[in-house]
Amino acid sequence: MTPALMPLAAEPVINEAATAFMLVAASMVLLMTPGLALFYGGMTRSKSVLNMIMMSFGAMAVVGVIYILWGYSMAFGNLQDGTSDIAGLFANPFHLFGIGELIGGGERLIDVFGVDVYIPEIIFAGFQLTFAVITVALISGSLADRVKFSTWLVFAGIWATVVYFPISHMVWGGGLLSGAENGLSARIFGATDGVANVLPIDFAGGTVVHINAGIAGLVLAVIVGKRIGFGKIPMRPQNVPLVMLGAGLLWFGWFGFNAGSELAADGLASRVWVNTTAATCAAILGWLIVERIRDGKPTSIGAASGVVAGLVAITPACGALSPAGSLLLGAVAGALSALAVGLKYKFGYDDSLDVVGVHLVSGLWGTIGAGLLAVSSGLFYGHGFQQLFLQIIIAVVALLVSGILTAVIGLALKATMGWRISEDDEEMGIDQSEHAESAYDIGGFPAGGRNTSAPRPRVASEQAEGANA
Amino acid sequence: MTPALMPLAAEPVINEAATAFMLVAASMVLLMTPGLALFYGGMTRSKSVLNMIMMSFGAMAVVGVIYILWGYSMAFGNLQDGTSDIAGLFANPFHLFGIGELIGGGERLIDVFGVDVYIPEIIFAGFQLTFAVITVALISGSLADRVKFSTWLVFAGIWATVVYFPISHMVWGGGLLSGAENGLSARIFGATDGVANVLPIDFAGGTVVHINAGIAGLVLAVIVGKRIGFGKIPMRPQNVPLVMLGAGLLWFGWFGFNAGSELAADGLASRVWVNTTAATCAAILGWLIVERIRDGKPTSIGAASGVVAGLVAITPACGALSPAGSLLLGAVAGALSALAVGLKYKFGYDDSLDVVGVHLVSGLWGTIGAGLLAVSSGLFYGHGFQQLFLQIIIAVVALLVSGILTAVIGLALKATMGWRISEDDEEMGIDQSEHAESAYDIGGFPAGGRNTSAPRPRVASEQAEGANA
Amino acid sequence: MTPALMPLAAEPVINEAATAFMLVAASMVLLMTPGLALFYGGMTRSKSVLNMIMMSFGAMAVVGVIYILWGYSMAFGNLQDGTSDIAGLFANPFHLFGIGELIGGGERLIDVFGVDVYIPEIIFAGFQLTFAVITVALISGSLADRVKFSTWLVFAGIWATVVYFPISHMVWGGGLLSGAENGLSARIFGATDGVANVLPIDFAGGTVVHINAGIAGLVLAVIVGKRIGFGKIPMRPQNVPLVMLGAGLLWFGWFGFNAGSELAADGLASRVWVNTTAATCAAILGWLIVERIRDGKPTSIGAASGVVAGLVAITPACGALSPAGSLLLGAVAGALSALAVGLKYKFGYDDSLDVVGVHLVSGLWGTIGAGLLAVSSGLFYGHGFQQLFLQIIIAVVALLVSGILTAVIGLALKATMGWRISEDDEEMGIDQSEHAESAYDIGGFPAGGRNTSAPRPRVASEQAEGANA
Repeated sequence: MTPALMPLAAEPVINEAATAFMLVAASMVLLMTPGLALFYGGMTRSKSVLNMIMMSFGAMAVVGVIYILWGYSMAFGNLQDGTSDIAGLFANPFHLFGIGELIGGGERLIDVFGVDVYIPEIIFAGFQLTFAVITVALISGSLADRVKFSTWLVFAGIWATVVYFPISHMVWGGGLLSGAENGLSARIFGATDGVANVLPIDFAGGTVVHINAGIAGLVLAVIVGKRIGFGKIPMRPQNVPLVMLGAGLLWFGWFGFNAGSELAADGLASRVWVNTTAATCAAILGWLIVERIRDGKPTSIGAASGVVAGLVAITPACGALSPAGSLLLGAVAGALSALAVGLKYKFGYDDSLDVVGVHLVSGLWGTIGAGLLAVSSGLFYGHGFQQLFLQIIIAVVALLVSGILTAVIGLALKATMGWRISEDDEEMGIDQSEHAESAYDIGGFPAGGRNTSAPRPRVASEQAEGANA
Repeated sequence: MTPALMPLAAEPVINEAATAFMLVAASMVLLMTPGLALFYGGMTRSKSVLNMIMMSFGAMAVVGVIYILWGYSMAFGNLQDGTSDIAGLFANPFHLFGIGELIGGGERLIDVFGVDVYIPEIIFAGFQLTFAVITVALISGSLADRVKFSTWLVFAGIWATVVYFPISHMVWGGGLLSGAENGLSARIFGATDGVANVLPIDFAGGTVVHINAGIAGLVLAVIVGKRIGFGKIPMRPQNVPLVMLGAGLLWFGWFGFNAGSELAADGLASRVWVNTTAATCAAILGWLIVERIRDGKPTSIGAASGVVAGLVAITPACGALSPAGSLLLGAVAGALSALAVGLKYKFGYDDSLDVVGVHLVSGLWGTIGAGLLAVSSGLFYGHGFQQLFLQIIIAVVALLVSGILTAVIGLALKATMGWRISEDDEEMGIDQSEHAESAYDIGGFPAGGRNTSAPRPRVASEQAEGANA
Repeated sequence: MTPALMPLAAEPVINEAATAFMLVAASMVLLMTPGLALFYGGMTRSKSVLNMIMMSFGAMAVVGVIYILWGYSMAFGNLQDGTSDIAGLFANPFHLFGIGELIGGGERLIDVFGVDVYIPEIIFAGFQLTFAVITVALISGSLADRVKFSTWLVFAGIWATVVYFPISHMVWGGGLLSGAENGLSARIFGATDGVANVLPIDFAGGTVVHINAGIAGLVLAVIVGKRIGFGKIPMRPQNVPLVMLGAGLLWFGWFGFNAGSELAADGLASRVWVNTTAATCAAILGWLIVERIRDGKPTSIGAASGVVAGLVAITPACGALSPAGSLLLGAVAGALSALAVGLKYKFGYDDSLDVVGVHLVSGLWGTIGAGLLAVSSGLFYGHGFQQLFLQIIIAVVALLVSGILTAVIGLALKATMGWRISEDDEEMGIDQSEHAESAYDIGGFPAGGRNTSAPRPRVASEQAEGANA
């Protein structure tokens, strides 16, 4: 989704095939967040699975609402009317507040890439909403088992507003990290006809989504601190089939994410589809081979993590590589992330479910690797170092912007609401303390009887049972 | 899907983009029923999860078959040939029996809304089939743990034929509750050029699906009676992650349900997509806020139920509201349903999984709320009381028709086949008594051994094991 | 997908609606393999669920990678350039090695059926990739609990190359089992204008996918041998809701599989959608009725298996039947497979999860049944025995080719790498021995404590925990 943003042409006609595709693609990306919830939920301990899942559902609720209120305005509000943004960082949050203007007097069309493919702007807004939601949800993986649900919801709203909406504007809305005339690339490499001579490559969100969420996860893991017993007691995944299901749903949804980012059902979207698959299949192999060599056994958690690592790495690069290049990118991503997930033990940060090892590491690799493997501009295809250099720059800028802003938000919340639940509650389990629920009641029951051995909720009013029964 | 049904134009051309969209939308709606099965299954006790799931799969089997045989004929059989229906209630069940005519001599096209968007009529039939299936399956939520599977299957077939097919004809097939010339609205408000001056708003099924299933659930809960121990012993959900998964799949499928009801991939379908998301995100917040205030803790079951309440409420209204209006509609739906699920304890009907609290209450709210919040006809937008009045009328008529007919069917089955399994079987668990199965065999097993503590099926022939192993 | 393959026309224009549909259809088929993994995983014992799931994910990794490298070349590499294949069996594996040519200088279009519907060839390749993946994964159902993961991965790569790619070429790539001039049908019934006078019917893969995987499963079950205790101790499904979820995901994905095989969003794809649903609904009933009569109770596993049997049977026939014919085909498929799953006990082969009973039996029935029920050529419609005869021939040829080649591969692997894990490992559970994991850690935990009763992994280095936590 690199830029070349243009004003609406005289008499645009809706491209119904692209619209059909975007309606489905947006639905698929929306499904990714429940998929992530299960992927993460399966990896936590059984006393905290619901809180893990609820961080994703809470992100859907909060970010979904504010995206409609002011998020789309901040990210893309100036796309169609030529008003300028604020220093290339974000657009006026109140310009399209509530996005009612997109439907006023018939649905407004948009030709995001200036290639005469018009889709209703409101489905573009819906599609982008799903990206904001999952990026916030991704961060929760570094916070398993220990943070107040209220603090998480507040963080979700603030972080989306202060970090995500601006970065998505910078990269895809014609801002600082785009190929627009006043973007970084144009300032470094010059511009021709208002477009940078070297275009940054971030097709579907290596910087916006994965580097962004990955560094935020790392910063918060440090600020929030470790779980009780981290590195000392085993914290085994409670339900691995749930993890595999989550990986499957993520893979499925990711086709909407990557191919949908083309905003049209064309040859490039088709190539993106195949590249996405190629990288993911190869990344499974990459991860399993590292495990086989290092640990002796290839694991299911490894395969599921390899799926995600491959999908993360190909996300920025999927429109620029060949299928064979995607195989290489994916295999390296799987291997790199398999190695990187051990770092938290070495450095002592409790990135509980490996947001850093998977999303930050493979996000960086995919963004930078595009500078090596892009068919028409990469180093390995004999096109020199310019693209590679630019890719490193956008990765580093995203890293710094997100890292610093996340630290500020995280520390401010630490000083005010506080992040951690009490130690007693953490020992007992956050599902009980924050949600008054437990995930399962499927223990062995005697014929003709009810469960007697299962844990009971600490808080249980008749009404709560009502909602539960 | 309000009417303006017209005969086939001279030389229709298939709209392939709309067809592509409908093929996928129908698939998404079909997935909702397994999603519902898991949503419901996760909320029951572990001794009845399979029966809960089987009520949905059974509905798929029975209703799917009869929809092809006579259901489509009854609901939409007179759409294309101008023959009249029976008193605005349903069309001739034998007119398109088996729907072979839709493929005779090349696929027949249809332009349901008379706006020159032609799709193959057979995919319209397939899409409508999926609505019939899930509406029946929804009802099963009020019948957890206690009804004979055979009675359920017979009920599914009769209820679909006597209640669902007619109501879907009345609302979407040009019948009594549509905007057609001889519909209620035209009789009340007059008609111009054969179309009512005030058009009923039920875009995707507030009356047909949710009020219909909700009141049927209430009536059956009363007729069938309470579970043993209802209101006295805790009946905790056995597998909450399964509930969250079900909610995720329902949300995904609901895009096909709501946006697909436009039958085209256009601007309105795009707006529907965003409104659907807006209402759902807001409804999660609405539900969780009520729980936080009332019970002290926001729960996962609450979030999942909020998802469904929001989706239910926006279903009739999704094509008429603004995104901001959808946020409001959804937030109120979440809060209302969160309050309503306690009513069953007050009034003593065992609506086990809250079909009434969620589908009936939010279905009524969404249908009536459309009279308040519809941008071009709602009270809040200064268009007076006409739309609101009409919405109340169609809601009440649907309520009465469905309630009365369901009572007749339910009582007739009570007097003949009987609804309840024996008390012993209910205590032991309906999965054993009706299906000779138990849901799980995952208890702790000693290294190197097999499960010994798990319950054994009561009925277990070698053949059954064959199918099971 | 019967042939009539033609060279690229002069100035092809992309059909964007078909492309949108294929992008989604391919995504849906890809989701089938994780769906299958859960379907199978739920049916195994809890000590082998992860290995079962990993056989599917491993197949995705290995077959996905080699499909891009040489699989597409072997199956369809000569479609567009008019070069000849090797004896009608397969095309040159190196011709489009890595499929980079499909994107060289703009995406290459393809009109697979010569009907002027052009889609990017690369999405056709992606779509076909997903078929190869799931066909291999299907086989794993006959190998539960007992085979080395390394041998399985090697088998997956060899079998795809030696069996699947050729058979898919033979049927869909203009080879021996297609309607091409030098195919079997043309040799038997003669040809007109280069096309056989009687066209084999295998719309979406009765021979290529289901007979192929089914006979391979049977042959391997015999070669690999029975599980310890097969037929003597109960081997109960560990998680039936997971089976139902898998069935739901398979059904959803199968719409991509069957309707997507039309490669266009048109009337025939719409008819395929409805026929697929009709057969599946009827097959559930067929299976449950057999269970009810034979065992006294209709089971969930039966319903899920009925779903798959119906989908399998309609796969070859879905483009040729009427909806009513599909109901009949499906009902018979459900009943036949319900009867067939008992055969393994009679004949003593351990087809653990009924690949033979479901895929081989319903695959044969669907392929041959198309000769009875095809509207325009079937025996029951008065068109004589030719189609039926041809259907039997292609079924038998597929059976023989796959059976013999699979036996050779299976025996070669038995003599070299070996198939079986040790008896001790099998008793302990293959999840531990092959993956050093266990599926669940959700046993009852005391308030405030950690699990103590749960099994620990045998191999657990700090790094492995890292990946797992």
